[in-house]
Order: sequence, then structure tokens, then C-alpha cells
Amino acid sequence: MKGKFITFEGGEGTGKSTQIKMLSEYLKQKDKDIVLTKEPGGTPLGQELRKMLITGDKDKMDAVTEALLFFADRHNHLVSKVWPAMEIGQWVLSDRFADSTFAYQYYGHQGRVSKKNLDALYEIAVGDFKPDLTIILDIDPKIGLARSLKKAAGEEIKEVRFESIDIDFHYRLREGFLKIANNDPHRCVVLDANKPIDELHKDIVALVSARFDI
Amino acid sequence: MKGKFITFEGGEGTGKSTQIKMLSEYLKQKDKDIVLTKEPGGTPLGQELRKMLITGDKDKMDAVTEALLFFADRHNHLVSKVWPAMEIGQWVLSDRFADSTFAYQYYGHQGRVSKKNLDALYEIAVGDFKPDLTIILDIDPKIGLARSLKKAAGEEIKEVRFESIDIDFHYRLREGFLKIANNDPHRCVVLDANKPIDELHKDIVALVSARFDI
Repeated sequence: MKGKFITFEGGEGTGKSTQIKMLSEYLKQKDKDIVLTKEPGGTPLGQELRKMLITGDKDKMDAVTEALLFFADRHNHLVSKVWPAMEIGQWVLSDRFADSTFAYQYYGHQGRVSKKNLDALYEIAVGDFKPDLTIILDIDPKIGLARSLKKAAGEEIKEVRFESIDIDFHYRLREGFLKIANNDPHRCVVLDANKPIDELHKDIVALVSARFDI
Repeated sequence: MKGKFITFEGGEGTGKSTQIKMLSEYLKQKDKDIVLTKEPGGTPLGQELRKMLITGDKDKMDAVTEALLFFADRHNHLVSKVWPAMEIGQWVLSDRFADSTFAYQYYGHQGRVSKKNLDALYEIAVGDFKPDLTIILDIDPKIGLARSLKKAAGEEIKEVRFESIDIDFHYRLREGFLKIANNDPHRCVVLDANKPIDELHKDIVALVSARFDI
């Protein structure tokens, strides 16, 4: 496809949404046609699924149901938004993609969904497609969770279903993202999300510029 | 597990919901502890998914997204309702189960979701579990659709997303259910749903009584 697909990954409160917006503005100045999106919830159907998935009680559904819903959102997102945009040369920046499902459902939840089942779901919902670049924002979960809960305090619908899981979960999640990066070192780059916002933005711009020759 | 799991399958307007209620009443008289349920929508989460899946425009989502959502509903239904009930010896009667997904998504939609992917989803969401008995109600789709649309005319939320697909789809769907029955002749029994309600009920009672020695 003619366009590019860049995904932002990481735990809670790593600043993904801030950084993805800043990168989007930068790329627009470089005359790229940008689609800014997210998972779950990048489509109208996905918005309904997002509400189901990330609000409410942490035990409202089991891990396999959760994984099936995340991949339903993902497939819908790809066929109705990501792939059509890439076909016409747009650059799609997504706040989370499949790595999050592996990090949360497999590493965070310690295999409550097996790697084999997640691989099978990836094959069904995504096929052999993958991001051109994945930027993993890394931070100590204690700092990240404090940021995330502070942000949620000002929101009407609180998207804190995952934040309400114990701290050990979030440390396993962080390790999970680092393992994913280790296993796919060309696609994934880990950046220190504890830096000031502007410095981290500069790191991201440097990375994207080098990777795509901008 | 100590209980039984009996599923009712068939196209639109075959009278599944009427017959399942009549069988439920009959089995209660025989001192069976009955759970009457349905797919999609047998749980609170499932009700939200049901609304997403069977109301609105027929093209609101693609077939793979649809299959993932049906299996998410199914897994949630099994773990939170069907299996716990069977564990304590209850008989669970379900208006639709996995055969519907194979009939609609594979046979009706002519392989828009591959058999391989549906088998993989079954494995993830259901494992090696299957119904003790599946009653497939068979009728000419022209008669069934007329019944179904007449019923929907009186409903506030019209569950006719699948009814709005062309008639050829419904003929393929009927053939699909008959193929499924052919491939699993011990589990599946096909009954003529064009009979008067009471006669069909008698056929079902005879079948269930013989099968489970009541």
C-alpha cells in the first residue's frame, strides 16, 4: 500500500495521545496527509466496543471474551479506516494496535489468553499485515498510573477499567512491551517516556525522519 | 458436566422461540431445572452485542468483524451462564448457538469468513465442548421470512438486519443448516417447521424424551 502505518504503544499514562498529536502536526507541516486514529474505538462501531471494553468493573468479562472484542474492533478498524486510507497514500497514526492486546491479555494477565490463541486471532483479524513502525513509550508504571488517574479525574466517562488492576499487572505489562520490542527490533523502537514532553517529541521526530527519509 | 445443553437452530421465522418455550414448560413438568437462553444476548454484555449485531443496516460491518463479535458473545455466554448452570445439573436450552454462525457467515455469505477461520474461532471460544442435542427447524425461507417480518412489524427495536438480505442468502442458509446436520447426524436432528405449532411440539417432545430417557 502507498501510505504508512505508525503505531504508538505503551502502558497507562505514557503520554501516547499527546505525542501522537504532536507527531501528526509535525508530519502535516511536511505535507503528509495524516489520519489520526486509535484502538479500541477508531470507528463508530469501535466507539461502542471501546465503551464496553475500557469502562466499568475490571471483572465485567473474562480475558478470552475481551480478546475477541479487541480483535473485532481491530478488524473493523483496518477494513473500514486504516487500509482504505493507506490505499490512497495517507499516513495513519494509531494510538495502540495489536501489541497492546498481546501485552495486556498475554503478558499482563499472565497467559489468561494463550499465545497460540492470540496468534490465531491476529491471523484471522489482521493477516500478514503489520505496522511500518511501532513506537513504544516506556515509563515506570507508578509514574504512568499516577498520570493516567489524574487525567481521568477530569473526565465524565472514566476510562480506567485497566488502571484499576493491581500494580504488579502493570509491571508485567511493561515487561511485555519490552519483550515484544526485543522480538521485533526493526519494527519496534522503545523510547523513554519519562522525559519532558518536548524532548520526547524531538526523539520521535528524529526517529520518524530517519526511518522514512523525510 | 451434570446438566444438558440443547440448542435450537434454523433460519428466520422457523418458530424457534415458540418451540423452545414450549419444550421448557414440558421439561419443568418433568422436574428438570431449566435455563432458557439465547445467542446472541444471553448475558448483560451479550445484550449490548445483540443490539450491535442484529439491528441496523445489513452492511454496517464486514463478515469477519461480525464473526468475532458472535464468538465473543458465545464465549461470554458459555463461561458466565451455560457452563455454571450445567455444573449444578441444570438443563440449558439455547435459541441458537455455534451452528448459526457457520450457517450464516459461511454458508449464507458463501465463505466470506473461511471455514478454517470459523473452526479456529470455535476452538478459541468453545474448545471441544458441544451441545448434547441440536434441533434444527427447517422451513421454506419464503414462508419463514414472511413470518419473521410480520412478527418484527409489532416490535419497537426491529431485529431484522439479517432478514433484509436477499432471498438467495436465505436459501443458502437453509442448505447450510442441512449440511451441518448431515455432517453431525447424532447431535443434529432436522424437523419440519411448517407443521402446526402443537404437532411440531409433539415431535420435539418425542425426540427429547427418547434421547434423554425421560
